[in-house]
Amino acid sequence: MDVLARARALEAGGRSIVHMEIGEPDFPTVEPVVRAGMEALAAGHTHYLPALGLEPLRAAIAGVYPESARPQPGRVAVTPGASGALLLALAAVLDPGDRVLMTDPGYPCNRHFVRLLEGEPVPVPVGAETGYQLTAELVRRHWDRRTAAVLLGSPSNPTGTLVPDAEMARIVAAVAELGGVLIVDEIYHGLTYGGTATSALVHSPDVFVVGSFSKYYGMTGWRLGWLVAPEPFVGAIDKLAQNVFIAASTPAQHAALAAFRPEVRAELERRRAIFGERRDYLVPALRALGFGVPVMPEGAFYVYADCSRFTNDSAAFALDLLQRAGVALTPGLDFGAHGAARHVRFSYATARENLEEGVRRIAAALGVGPSP
Amino acid sequence: MDVLARARALEAGGRSIVHMEIGEPDFPTVEPVVRAGMEALAAGHTHYLPALGLEPLRAAIAGVYPESARPQPGRVAVTPGASGALLLALAAVLDPGDRVLMTDPGYPCNRHFVRLLEGEPVPVPVGAETGYQLTAELVRRHWDRRTAAVLLGSPSNPTGTLVPDAEMARIVAAVAELGGVLIVDEIYHGLTYGGTATSALVHSPDVFVVGSFSKYYGMTGWRLGWLVAPEPFVGAIDKLAQNVFIAASTPAQHAALAAFRPEVRAELERRRAIFGERRDYLVPALRALGFGVPVMPEGAFYVYADCSRFTNDSAAFALDLLQRAGVALTPGLDFGAHGAARHVRFSYATARENLEEGVRRIAAALGVGPSP
Repeated sequence: MDVLARARALEAGGRSIVHMEIGEPDFPTVEPVVRAGMEALAAGHTHYLPALGLEPLRAAIAGVYPESARPQPGRVAVTPGASGALLLALAAVLDPGDRVLMTDPGYPCNRHFVRLLEGEPVPVPVGAETGYQLTAELVRRHWDRRTAAVLLGSPSNPTGTLVPDAEMARIVAAVAELGGVLIVDEIYHGLTYGGTATSALVHSPDVFVVGSFSKYYGMTGWRLGWLVAPEPFVGAIDKLAQNVFIAASTPAQHAALAAFRPEVRAELERRRAIFGERRDYLVPALRALGFGVPVMPEGAFYVYADCSRFTNDSAAFALDLLQRAGVALTPGLDFGAHGAARHVRFSYATARENLEEGVRRIAAALGVGPSP
Repeated sequence: MDVLARARALEAGGRSIVHMEIGEPDFPTVEPVVRAGMEALAAGHTHYLPALGLEPLRAAIAGVYPESARPQPGRVAVTPGASGALLLALAAVLDPGDRVLMTDPGYPCNRHFVRLLEGEPVPVPVGAETGYQLTAELVRRHWDRRTAAVLLGSPSNPTGTLVPDAEMARIVAAVAELGGVLIVDEIYHGLTYGGTATSALVHSPDVFVVGSFSKYYGMTGWRLGWLVAPEPFVGAIDKLAQNVFIAASTPAQHAALAAFRPEVRAELERRRAIFGERRDYLVPALRALGFGVPVMPEGAFYVYADCSRFTNDSAAFALDLLQRAGVALTPGLDFGAHGAARHVRFSYATARENLEEGVRRIAAALGVGPSP
């Protein structure tokens, strides 16, 4: 967030900044959802809801999953953002000192959540050879008697890569065999280009799955996510949610009911196509500039790019590009330690013309192609 | 919440239930705030806000405090409910094993928050002789080398009592002298009848103060609260908020800006007068029935009543009154262990006619006055 703060400061001083550091969709919430929120307010829906959420919303969320793997709505907890879901899942699972395996690079809040609960995050270095994801083999290799859980993101932030379905099946089996718990962050589900991301629930009802209305549904500021918990944990999750949050936002929950309407789905799919086009522009453009993108990102709106042709200090590089070129990127250091100095994250949650302008500015600043 | 769930189940089966167990104002959010929320949505305020909140809202919250004790807006963190503020304050302050002094009876989530962070809640038995509140003397007596913090609620849930201003000054001084941190839950500020609650900030800028839009401002379902943190903690609180919540709800923050308008204040004061009238009816009525209310509750919307004339098991008593009389109360056990079996909490967050009906039903069920 340091780059974002500096970028905002430069903008406040009149500089033009191309934002390729931002982790939320540039689209506003779709109109029918906004309207449903306004109608909920007009109807007086301003009181607390039950801790696990509005019944019809829990049922609608359950309906997102493939029929063969569909959870009972009672297993769905509506949470204040996916952040709330991660907190509930980890709080339900961890004892102090418990180790949690996660990718390095990975979503930085994950390790903070684990530390907040006095667990120990265990970053597992991952690279292009595994699509920047854990594998069953990596899980087994890093597991020890203090390990309690594995936390995966698919699609991943910052790499945009997925755990292939067959590998997810092997990971689910490995974690079960090792007697641990698997938590899968699926908050970028829906935002995939080419293939479709399959939920880990397809492989087992015993995994925790985190979902969100923020990314595909474009509802970041409403702060609404969900957790699908294994049946035996539902009672504990209910009590935890009650104590830690009381409940998720009432108007947001009513608004989210509209997110499943066919006309909303059509608009969200239109947006997904736009994200896909941006990716299809940006990845080759970055490669042409000399950035390394060895694995095509299949989801989310991020490209995790090797910048070692230009620098051995990606944090300084990002600051330099911000200052000289007016392009904001996120340095690898924000996502871990492994290869961090050689990587930056580009976000394509901004319009195509901004991406093109960003690429032009970077090309000029670095004195590299594409030719004008 | 057990009683609430049973009460809802009975209602679903057609029974009439008088709700004297509910911990939220029965009033809906005031119209100008609802309208501001709708306008914010119409204006497209659906993206993330900075972790510590909307600048003008932070300034408006700071303005709530007396001029002599007014914090810089930079010390105000807008949070997802007061729950979020408590989590931030405790996470910023506690190391594993740290002890936190709190009243017994007290707000049950407090001890859960401390345990979630691997601290140790230390319930201090309090009774009518101290207005069910801690005193500087009690703090000193229960302090040991593992104690890190004191967590107070004034007005208190479940007792509705305040820490007198002079005693708060002594507690602030005692905690400072002992090298600890004082966290004061002031979420019921504004809802006082007779006197006014003074913020603990008046005594020191080094206390953590938790505030809320839920109770006085009637915005429960929006999930919006705040934390005023001592200056040296602000950086840590910002990082924690970013990692744990990302930010509080955007539409809720825009809506809350309207909560400080004069016409809203007038309506909130009208509601406060209604709460005061309800208290002035309920406390004598309960005493006439034979409940013990040795200390007049001065704030919130609760009466913590001794029911030992009728039972030595308040949980069974509450269930019995629910079943036989259709009146829902909260047993003392929900708030701690000390004297729990001899106490129930009555909430007057329901209309006067409901309170009167509740009193009639209890009188009939127990076969006690008032005469018909």
